Amino acid sequence: MTSWTLFLAPGTCAQAVHITLHDAGAPHALRVLDFSSAEQRSPAYLAVNPRGRVPALITEQGTLTEVPALLLFIAQSFPAAKLAPLDDPFRLAQLQAFTSYLCSTVHVAHAHKRRGARWVDDPGAIEAMQRKVAANMTACFDHIEADVLKGPWAFGQDYTIADPYLFTIGEWLEGDGVDMQRYPNLLAHRARMLARESVQRAKAALQQ
Amino acid sequence: MTSWTLFLAPGTCAQAVHITLHDAGAPHALRVLDFSSAEQRSPAYLAVNPRGRVPALITEQGTLTEVPALLLFIAQSFPAAKLAPLDDPFRLAQLQAFTSYLCSTVHVAHAHKRRGARWVDDPGAIEAMQRKVAANMTACFDHIEADVLKGPWAFGQDYTIADPYLFTIGEWLEGDGVDMQRYPNLLAHRARMLARESVQRAKAALQQ
Repeated sequence: MTSWTLFLAPGTCAQAVHITLHDAGAPHALRVLDFSSAEQRSPAYLAVNPRGRVPALITEQGTLTEVPALLLFIAQSFPAAKLAPLDDPFRLAQLQAFTSYLCSTVHVAHAHKRRGARWVDDPGAIEAMQRKVAANMTACFDHIEADVLKGPWAFGQDYTIADPYLFTIGEWLEGDGVDMQRYPNLLAHRARMLARESVQRAKAALQQ
Repeated sequence: MTSWTLFLAPGTCAQAVHITLHDAGAPHALRVLDFSSAEQRSPAYLAVNPRGRVPALITEQGTLTEVPALLLFIAQSFPAAKLAPLDDPFRLAQLQAFTSYLCSTVHVAHAHKRRGARWVDDPGAIEAMQRKVAANMTACFDHIEADVLKGPWAFGQDYTIADPYLFTIGEWLEGDGVDMQRYPNLLAHRARMLARESVQRAKAALQQ
């Protein structure tokens, strides 16, 4: 197959897709955007993704965006890597319920810290949002720790596309002011992720 | 198959799942929650969905939540209804990119009108959020109208699970103060949806 190209930026949810490309053994090139100069809003990038966000993946069939969609697409394109329960609609729906929750609730709770201007113009209101981020992220991860994360992986015995996504968003917690002592399961999951070659290769690729 | 049970409330995104159950011909019962008494936060419902939100679908295998996950699950469980491109991973990823966008960006933009207390405690900040909802929903639907909605259906010639989801969120626009004259394609889509038996049956079921 031809090589895909992943548009990403350090510290973003695109890392989940990047790790999954390594998990799948998918040939790929990287295009790192410079968020400090708002490259994601440049005309050149808006031609790639009119939403002005990462990740975007250029494939031989066209461009795809949005983390949950990309994760399942990679899993379906490389079935031998067994990254999702592709033959079990109920289990797949449980997995997708979790990736949907991460994108629509948890990522959004985090985004109110630095991206508050998406939802308000008033500086005081932006500060008010920032004050609630730690509590909201704590509520999300209390639920994940108690109700979702079974161990060793997010969905039990089998590593899936949920793992790099959970790992990536979980890396934001310290910066959001969350007390990590609440989350022994999540910290054990993080340690297992950091021991994986796919995670190490994805991290190393952005440090060059 | 045994009948499923859908937990929903009027005016919520759960309508997308409800319509899809009718599109699929899936036997189902309804449990309508009373949001005016915060029934979604009651201990009985939190035992169904600890996130305290609708929709939730009780199946013979267990409970599922989150609209994008439920839509694909219904499509996979009733393949004869042809509600998603199940045999084409790229097209499916395009579809899922759209349902992800609806749940993580568009629904979230709308939620800042009435659910602002999720993200701030300060009443003035909640009002500041409300003032930006019309502009944010307009930006989202300008993009959908120009870049996504091809017609006659969201993804072109074939009706898919994206259609009831787009229709449902699109019904919120007037209440959000958006100028509908901008969206001839969306209004034509709405009219096509309202002519479908599945939509009429879902609407009628909540008016009893």
